[in-house]
Order: sequence, then structure tokens, then C-alpha cells
Amino acid sequence: MKNICLLGASGSIGQQTINIIRNSKEYSLKAISVGHNIEAAIAIITEFRPEFVSVACQKDKEYLQTKFPKITFACGEQGLIDVATYGEGEGLLINAVVGMIGLAPTIAAIMKKRDVLLANKETLVAGGELVMALAKQYEVNIFPIDSEHSAIYQCLLSGKREDVANLIITASGGALRDKTREELATVSLEETLKHPNWSMGKKITIDSATMVNKGLEVIEAHHLFSMPYEKIKTILHPESIIHSMVEYNDGSIIAQMSYPNMMLPIQYALTHPHHIKNEAIKMLDFINMKNLSFQAMDFSRFPMLELAYQVGKSGGILPTVYNAANEAAVDLFMRKKISFLDIEKIIFEMVKQYQTNNKIAITLNAILQIDRDVKKFIYETYEVC
Amino acid sequence: MKNICLLGASGSIGQQTINIIRNSKEYSLKAISVGHNIEAAIAIITEFRPEFVSVACQKDKEYLQTKFPKITFACGEQGLIDVATYGEGEGLLINAVVGMIGLAPTIAAIMKKRDVLLANKETLVAGGELVMALAKQYEVNIFPIDSEHSAIYQCLLSGKREDVANLIITASGGALRDKTREELATVSLEETLKHPNWSMGKKITIDSATMVNKGLEVIEAHHLFSMPYEKIKTILHPESIIHSMVEYNDGSIIAQMSYPNMMLPIQYALTHPHHIKNEAIKMLDFINMKNLSFQAMDFSRFPMLELAYQVGKSGGILPTVYNAANEAAVDLFMRKKISFLDIEKIIFEMVKQYQTNNKIAITLNAILQIDRDVKKFIYETYEVC
Repeated sequence: MKNICLLGASGSIGQQTINIIRNSKEYSLKAISVGHNIEAAIAIITEFRPEFVSVACQKDKEYLQTKFPKITFACGEQGLIDVATYGEGEGLLINAVVGMIGLAPTIAAIMKKRDVLLANKETLVAGGELVMALAKQYEVNIFPIDSEHSAIYQCLLSGKREDVANLIITASGGALRDKTREELATVSLEETLKHPNWSMGKKITIDSATMVNKGLEVIEAHHLFSMPYEKIKTILHPESIIHSMVEYNDGSIIAQMSYPNMMLPIQYALTHPHHIKNEAIKMLDFINMKNLSFQAMDFSRFPMLELAYQVGKSGGILPTVYNAANEAAVDLFMRKKISFLDIEKIIFEMVKQYQTNNKIAITLNAILQIDRDVKKFIYETYEVC
Repeated sequence: MKNICLLGASGSIGQQTINIIRNSKEYSLKAISVGHNIEAAIAIITEFRPEFVSVACQKDKEYLQTKFPKITFACGEQGLIDVATYGEGEGLLINAVVGMIGLAPTIAAIMKKRDVLLANKETLVAGGELVMALAKQYEVNIFPIDSEHSAIYQCLLSGKREDVANLIITASGGALRDKTREELATVSLEETLKHPNWSMGKKITIDSATMVNKGLEVIEAHHLFSMPYEKIKTILHPESIIHSMVEYNDGSIIAQMSYPNMMLPIQYALTHPHHIKNEAIKMLDFINMKNLSFQAMDFSRFPMLELAYQVGKSGGILPTVYNAANEAAVDLFMRKKISFLDIEKIIFEMVKQYQTNNKIAITLNAILQIDRDVKKFIYETYEVC
């Protein structure tokens, strides 16, 4: 029986994680966090009776405390940290919150010598060096819950690290792949949210359309697999069947495939190196599948990906700035305060602003401060309520 | 420095193996066999100065002995065994002869505790149980030189054997893939030898067209990877980019890809688990590559594949009969004594003939006897000189 602490239990990854926990006798859900979705919180509490629950705001905490007097409740950012570190002895943190808010709980879990299954890629983008160094120091594993990185992990098992020529991350191209730069100027939020292959949360669906998601994944791969950016390639693969590949020095390519379904990388994060049968995951039917195609990644069509490589290579606080600007801009786009192309514009501007000032020592506090500063600047500049 | 004994040095696999040995300082070619290609033998001897050389016939042996008095020569079937077991201490047998003639040398090398790199798939088809049992007893490795089995080996490294749902062996379909059964009745030897993707020896190119090659590979995979036939699938993949795959229980599929080039599996057999850069092997260019397609394998179009599953599952001497009948029939087809579809007809007849008499204990002598009997019967029946 593995004790699970789950951050982001009501989100897309969180719900699918719960589905896996529901169908297995191996896991016990000890602590969860949800944001504002109190209905989802009540359903999870009723079914799993976790010992500790954190929500976003004080009011919801008080309401739930009255409803479930035997359970301990918390709220806010400290609540997330308390969930991540809940309980004594062995435990596993599944971090499925969206955005930089996931960084502090990840670090807290690592310092409690707790393995982390990480769907929260922003954490590794901003805090990659810090998180990986701490993971090494505390001897814990950071395992990706992300189809691409799960694929790379599996493909790397086939060979030796020193024989890797390139990691090849595939990208579907997102909802707006077939639109020209000119057409992007007028796309709506609704069009942007129609991902052709994946059913995911809203933020990541928008990140797929801007290709910021692939940019974050490139930086994530750099940290997770200690791989130089020169050896991380991206390629368009519209069918989303090959989730990523590893090219070895002799030209042998190992690829991981499945239908696009997050259940698989979530479950594999829990069961690896084992692959356990799950009736809810459909086996790939090669005969009735579309042909697999590939196209070069066009940096002029997707400038955010090129920028991700640049900020990744620069390192320092620039990945934090890139990510913070994206989080704020996507939030504004979701609330229809800015246009689709404004997301790119804002990220470019903010990275430019911080480019000459990239000498700050990377601590958790520095990262959180920059994140707040960038977001504050963007909201003050663009949010015209 | 690894001492190499190479059987079949003048053939397609043999020459490519020599190419790799030429460009590496890791290997020393100690002993070789060639058949009747004395010109090739002289070239190899002149360049590599092996200590021991075997050829097919006595006359060639005597000629070469006069020309190279310091080298020891042998001939015939015993010569192959002497090459396989040549020298003291560590050594590696690369068995790249075509046909059942490779079985006795493989067994001799195993009993000398010598690892075997096996391009000679007939050996495992006929003698699979015997060879694998001896390999276990003498603690030696049998490593495949075959793009499909090399692919499966690599894909199996990514997971655990108990989590494998299926091995999926891909097949290009061979030179006659797009012809109907009716059209096959009149195809010529020349058409049959035009493989769309692979440049290989003549026998294996014909075996690809009849799909006997895939049948042999299914039986080979069964023995090499201790996998029940129910878990070995075949699929048409006309582009020959994915060389085979492993499907795991959770639906994750690991595939191995490269351009169709035997240099890669040959080199990997020598260097595994390492993947070493080789300028002669072109890296895969996904952008300028055809889309990857898949089709169901049609047993009524390719009855030899279905028959291979049947003889494989029956076991005993039937795989030997299937293979011997194919070897003789392909030889007759190459000499234009029979038609393309006669190959199938002969294999069917011979398997039927031995089906009711499948109780013989499987020893090396029994296998060799059946092989001789089957071939003799076919030559006596069909060879009208």
C-alpha cells in the first residue's frame, strides 16, 4: 500500500489519477488539494476519506470543515505544502497543479525524502536546477507525468545515456496548427481550445496552440534527463501516436507509441518499470490507424518554441520569466482581455526586459519573487477591467 | 581486441560484417569460411590475414593453400565447424551462412562456450529448442543479426519480460506484395528478386516474397525470446522503417526504427548494449521520409506465414521439414526448375507428409537426417535435368 498525496485532485490529471487509484488496491489517498471546485472535493472526500484536504480559500475550508469534522482542512499556498508533506513515513507526491504554485510543494516533498510524480511542468522550467539538485541531494526520484517525457524515459531504458544522439520530442501542433500567422491574429478562445488529439486542461491546450507547451517540455527534458539543449529536437507529428523518441549514435531510433491518453503516463509513473494492464486504456490498433506523418518544426511559425530554447540555454531567471509571462498572458487570454498573438508579444517583451538582468542567484525565494514581479507587471499593463 | 570467427564471409551479411571490422580496432578476424567465391576469399585473406580459412570444395582448398602457404585451410561441412571453434580462449562466432548447414557449427561454438551472433535463422528454426537449451547449459549468448530481432531485443530492454503483451514483427511484404494470388502464378525469378526496400542475399529476398522469411522469423523469435506463438504478431509495414515493436500490457508500444540497412543490426550485435557512431549508417530523416503505414497481414494471401505458425506450434521436426522444403524449393526456383507458386506447394506437401510422423526425438542428428531426407525427396521429385 503506497500512501499518495495528490495536488490538483479536481483537474484533468488529478481526476485521471483518481481513476487509477480507484481501480487499484495498491494506493491509499491520504491527502489532496483542490482549488475552487468544492463539488469535486466533496465527491473525492466522500469516496476516499483522505485524512487531509487543502482548498484555495478560507471560506471553502470552513464550509468543508463543518461538513466533514473528522478531516483536517487547510487552505492557500501553505495548504499545498502541507498536503505535499502530509503524514510520516513513506509517501508519494503526485503534483498535478497547474503553474508556478507547484514549485514550493515539490521542494517541500523532496526535502522530506518523498518521490515526486510531476505533471506540474512549470516547476521544472522555473526551478529545474534547484529541484534536480535537491532531488540528488535527498536521493529522491522525480518522475514525469507527461506523455512526451514518459516516452523519453521508456526509450532511454533501451540504451545507455552516453550513446544518445538526440531526444526527439514530438508535437501535434495544437488546435491552430493549420492556420497561418496572419490567421492567428483573429482566432478566438473557443477555436484555441479545440485540440485535435488530446483532451486536456484549458491552460495546456492553449500552451499547445502557442507551442509554449513544447517549449516548456524542451526545458523540462533538459533538466529531467540532464541533456544539453543541442541534443533536444522537436518535430511535428500531427497524429500524436509517437509520443517522443530517442535517437542513438548508431542511427537506431527507439520510439514510444500509444493512443493519446494521459491515463497511460499517469499509470506508468506509478507502476514503472512495470506496465500493468488497464482495461480503460485502449490498445493501439495499427490497422485502423491513420498513417504516421512528420513535418519539420518551423520556428518562424512557432516563435515561442525558439524563444524557449534561447531562455533555456541562457538559464538563470529567464525560464522563470518566460513561464510567468506565459501564465499571466494565458490567464488574460482565457478571460478575453487580450488576443491570441498578444500572448507571444507579452512573453517576448518580458524576456527582453529581464535579459540584461540575468545574474540573480537562483533560490526558491528569488524564483518566486521574479514570478510575482513579472505577473504583476503584466496584469498592471494589460488588465483593463 | 575480440577474436572473430566468421562463417559466410563472402555473402551479403559477411561482407557488411567485414566492413564493420575494417573500420574498427576492436576486432581481429581469426577464421573465416567462404563457399565458392574464391576471388572474395583471396581479397579477404590478403587484407585481414586470418589464420584459418575454410572453403566449400577440396579443389579450392588446395589452390588457396599453394597461394597462401602460411594459412591453414579446410573445406566442406567439417571446415565450417573448424572455423566456428577455431582458436583457444575468448572468441565470437558470427554465423552468416545461409541454410541448415549453419546448425552444426553453431552448436560446436556453443559447446566451446563461445557467444554466437546469428544471421543464420534456419539454425534456430530447425534446431531452436536444442540450440537454446545448449546455450543455457553452456552459459553463452545467442544474439540475432536480423533487423526484426535486433529491434525486438532493443524494445524488450525498455520493459520487463512479464509485462509483454505481444511482439509485433513488421514485414515489408517483399517484392511481390502488390500482386494477387493469380498474378503470382506467372512471376519470374527476376521480378521476385527486386525487393523494394532491402538489399539482401538472393535466398532471403525470395523468402520475403513468399513470406517464408517472416514465418522463419516468427519461429526464430519464439526461441530467441522464449515467447509463446500467441504473443507473436505480424503486420505489414511497407516502408520498412519500423523494424519491429514490443507491445506492453498497459498499451505502451516501443518501436525501433532506422533506414533498412543491415549494417545497423550487424554492428549492434557486436556493440550492444552500446550504440556506436558509424559514418556509413545514415541517420533517419523524418522530414523527407514517407509516411509510415500499416496493413493487416492476410494469411490467405501469404499462406506460408500461417503454415509457419502451425509448424512452430506443433514443434518437433515440422519446423525442420518446413525449412528444408523451403531451402530445396527456393534452390529449384533460383535455377528456374519450378515456378514461384511451386515453392508453396512443395512446402505444403512436405509438411503434410511428415505431420503424422512428428514424434522423433530432436537431436542434432535427427534434424540433419530429416533435412537431408526432405531435400532428397524434393530434388528427386522436381529436378528434371
